Amino acid sequence: MSVNRYKHNLDCSYTLGATLTLELLKYKHHYVKRIFIQSQTIDSDGIRRIYDECSKYCIPIEQNDKAFNVLSQKENCYVIGEFSKYSTKINNQTNQIVLVNPSNAGNLGTIIRTMAGFNILDLAIIKPGTDIFDPKVIRSSMGSIFHINFQYYDSFEEYLKENSNLNLYPFMLKGKKSIENIEFKKPCALVFGNEATGLVDEFLNVGNTVVINHSNLIDSLNLPIAASIAMYEMNKYISK
Amino acid sequence: MSVNRYKHNLDCSYTLGATLTLELLKYKHHYVKRIFIQSQTIDSDGIRRIYDECSKYCIPIEQNDKAFNVLSQKENCYVIGEFSKYSTKINNQTNQIVLVNPSNAGNLGTIIRTMAGFNILDLAIIKPGTDIFDPKVIRSSMGSIFHINFQYYDSFEEYLKENSNLNLYPFMLKGKKSIENIEFKKPCALVFGNEATGLVDEFLNVGNTVVINHSNLIDSLNLPIAASIAMYEMNKYISK
Repeated sequence: MSVNRYKHNLDCSYTLGATLTLELLKYKHHYVKRIFIQSQTIDSDGIRRIYDECSKYCIPIEQNDKAFNVLSQKENCYVIGEFSKYSTKINNQTNQIVLVNPSNAGNLGTIIRTMAGFNILDLAIIKPGTDIFDPKVIRSSMGSIFHINFQYYDSFEEYLKENSNLNLYPFMLKGKKSIENIEFKKPCALVFGNEATGLVDEFLNVGNTVVINHSNLIDSLNLPIAASIAMYEMNKYISK
Repeated sequence: MSVNRYKHNLDCSYTLGATLTLELLKYKHHYVKRIFIQSQTIDSDGIRRIYDECSKYCIPIEQNDKAFNVLSQKENCYVIGEFSKYSTKINNQTNQIVLVNPSNAGNLGTIIRTMAGFNILDLAIIKPGTDIFDPKVIRSSMGSIFHINFQYYDSFEEYLKENSNLNLYPFMLKGKKSIENIEFKKPCALVFGNEATGLVDEFLNVGNTVVINHSNLIDSLNLPIAASIAMYEMNKYISK
């Protein structure tokens, strides 16, 4: 079986490195197709645990240096996991994050990492949006992508059809209330726009719009920073 | 004058792109040596403002496509600012951020952007630490680097010699108090460790240690995320 550089339209993706591959084997082993090991890999605790997991689930291990040339630019990557992409459904009874047209893979992964950290495990992405299985997303999520449910929607209207019960909190510079004054009601959907453009003005008529105030030295907070402050504050309010 | 790829030991650095170059001209024009314009640059509002600023401050403009090959990998970069590195002093009467051995340029820039957003304008970096003039730091700071004071110290002890009056809040997984329960006292120094290792245990005896609680689905929050939540919460407490 040949190895191809990652592309959005392929049906498999990759975890680059031992840590991510262990998370994959631990939480999504059903989807793992094979594990690549580099010939110069040094025996380590991580590598032994990968061998153990593979033997438990009958997952083939290939020594395949070519795979590393094709898939990884980093020199210190000795293990790669290949897995079939899978789909999940989000749960509309629980707090969730909605990203409208996110465009940066590193940002998406960082948001997913914070979600897992604050036990917010459902993510809706409104298209067009970054491919969640891009290896860069997996890496910057530090493997927490394997803990969350996600679902893509063609439009925000499509999202609302399945999630009309959620209390919507669109975050925007023109938001009507400052985040300190929001009385979050479960289940919450925290909604964020694209990195460059934010949410369009139409969202001013959606749910309870929120602003995170900042000085005029910057145009806006970075997207994962804004989303993380929102998750932190929402969690704190709800657990009061 | 030739153009060299950026290196830490050079005495100049670069702003890649019109937005960053405008921030440079606006806030640090004394240090600007010259501006490079690509031959294919299309006339735009940003470009006209750059010409205006350069004429105001007698800064030379060079049409120099080679500079773009050397300095920028991005296709859509049409303007580059070259400036002399400068040094600043931090103010020990005001809230500040202390980064112990930060190692990632993108993270450092993102932290600086949030600092500017929350009016925290003084940054101490304990060596070894990322070079603040790395063009990647400048880019991810979105130019807010030109608003802050920064100072490098050889060790945390050296830092304390000049800043002994500050109330220290080291953020660490073993922190004694949860951030919600901290009574921040001005001037605060929020202290953060390296991306991979955090702060060493010796910091448990320094000031008031703080933890930002998260689920056990992740090992830690991403550094700029933790620092930003801390700045947000500190600001909120102090302005109460």
